[in-house]
Amino acid sequence: METFFSFLSKRVDDCSSLICVGLDPHPADLVKPTAGAAKEFCLSIIKKTAPYAAAFKPNAAFFEMHGAEGWEALQEVIQGVQAESERLGSLIPVILDAKRGDIASTAEAYASSAFGRLGAHAITLNPYLGKDSIEPFLSWKEKGVFLLCKTSNPGAADLQDHPVAHEGQPPVPLHVHIDRLAQTWNSGNNIGLVVGATQPEALRRVRAAAPGVWILVPGVGTQGGDLATALDIGLRADGRGLLINISRGIARAEDPGQAAAQLRDEMINLQRELRSSRS
Amino acid sequence: METFFSFLSKRVDDCSSLICVGLDPHPADLVKPTAGAAKEFCLSIIKKTAPYAAAFKPNAAFFEMHGAEGWEALQEVIQGVQAESERLGSLIPVILDAKRGDIASTAEAYASSAFGRLGAHAITLNPYLGKDSIEPFLSWKEKGVFLLCKTSNPGAADLQDHPVAHEGQPPVPLHVHIDRLAQTWNSGNNIGLVVGATQPEALRRVRAAAPGVWILVPGVGTQGGDLATALDIGLRADGRGLLINISRGIARAEDPGQAAAQLRDEMINLQRELRSSRS
Repeated sequence: METFFSFLSKRVDDCSSLICVGLDPHPADLVKPTAGAAKEFCLSIIKKTAPYAAAFKPNAAFFEMHGAEGWEALQEVIQGVQAESERLGSLIPVILDAKRGDIASTAEAYASSAFGRLGAHAITLNPYLGKDSIEPFLSWKEKGVFLLCKTSNPGAADLQDHPVAHEGQPPVPLHVHIDRLAQTWNSGNNIGLVVGATQPEALRRVRAAAPGVWILVPGVGTQGGDLATALDIGLRADGRGLLINISRGIARAEDPGQAAAQLRDEMINLQRELRSSRS
Repeated sequence: METFFSFLSKRVDDCSSLICVGLDPHPADLVKPTAGAAKEFCLSIIKKTAPYAAAFKPNAAFFEMHGAEGWEALQEVIQGVQAESERLGSLIPVILDAKRGDIASTAEAYASSAFGRLGAHAITLNPYLGKDSIEPFLSWKEKGVFLLCKTSNPGAADLQDHPVAHEGQPPVPLHVHIDRLAQTWNSGNNIGLVVGATQPEALRRVRAAAPGVWILVPGVGTQGGDLATALDIGLRADGRGLLINISRGIARAEDPGQAAAQLRDEMINLQRELRSSRS
């Protein structure tokens, strides 16, 4: 059966890119702080960067803040990705960055919103409520879930680094525990993880513990994470398994298309160097 | 300065009730699965139960699932609470059950959505991303935040019960660690906690560790939590500090107003018994 990750792998091959283009229409970046301006901002980025985008990741908050009009805009932005996919003849996945997490029937409603109504192909989720808060999303078998594991912000240390003891094994940081839980929940092969590039040691630990998992990596660029380090540490043995999210580095470039193209080429070069140094 | 919790305390006194009426317009409870039906369902409950409601808690998911129209409906439901407040001459707080959690500028956008655009008085938040994911909400000083601490679902045990070690102190369950973090973050006195009634031991631990905090308690009734136990364990020494959320127990009653009135009276009797057994 086709899973989200087989679909994503195909797109990564089609465009030779590991870039996830973040769509974060922050009011400060818009001509005016409206839902319409947020939509135009995103559609323009989509049009310019689609050939180099392994995925697009709209951030729900920057639409939700505009109320009903914002949700209308989010729907149209996702349709904009579908239109570019058709134009290019290669389906580009949409990862809804929503970080939802709630109990069973509520989680079902969030899944229905993201996957059903909006038509996103994957979603970011918060693991704090445990397995039954994730299952309603996993039951959409052709869709994907990225569980927050180690986030890129300073506050990540408040919980995610604390050593937790589990079933008599030596304590591991909470984010490694999430990684282990994710593997036990992943019978449908539709769970990936979110690990910030600002935390190379966490990325190294997660990759060691889960050699095959897809990892979505925010925090490269503006937040200080280093691209070469992230690729070196995070790529799977087969040179895939990593999605590098770039938001402001593309959106605020004078020419977002050129910025995405350059970044894609930089990644291809780094991947080539890694392959030759590893072989 | 007036805080959310002084406002909530006043309302609790005005209506002699600790009931938080959950507004969860689950499609199965509606005449048809539309945003309009969700709105009418909630407005009807609000009208019938307002005299007995210490607060209303709309669940964002059951609106979000209807897209833009759902967000429009959510806005109108919150306005419906405001209209009943005016009619009764006592302001009833609205707690948006959204369980959001994201990094700084994204958290700002979610706060602007909940507190600014929707006009909610408080919000439920997920603590997994740490302090800087909560601060943008806390900076709305007259608004309130309920941090998820121990949730009422089975999956809560996957993370929230694990012993975590912190700064050389003996390990405590993660939910108690959240409680401690919340106290260090609570300089503006605008943080409460969410602890499920299905977890009486957790409620006991949290109340012991934080004698003054407001606790929002889901899980009484349909999910199996016992009301008398929750009040006995969870009430502060002053007989306040607890909000008991009831959703289906009121919404699915033949007469929601009567169900809320009976529940309020039952709580008053239980509180009286507790006072006399404690004195």
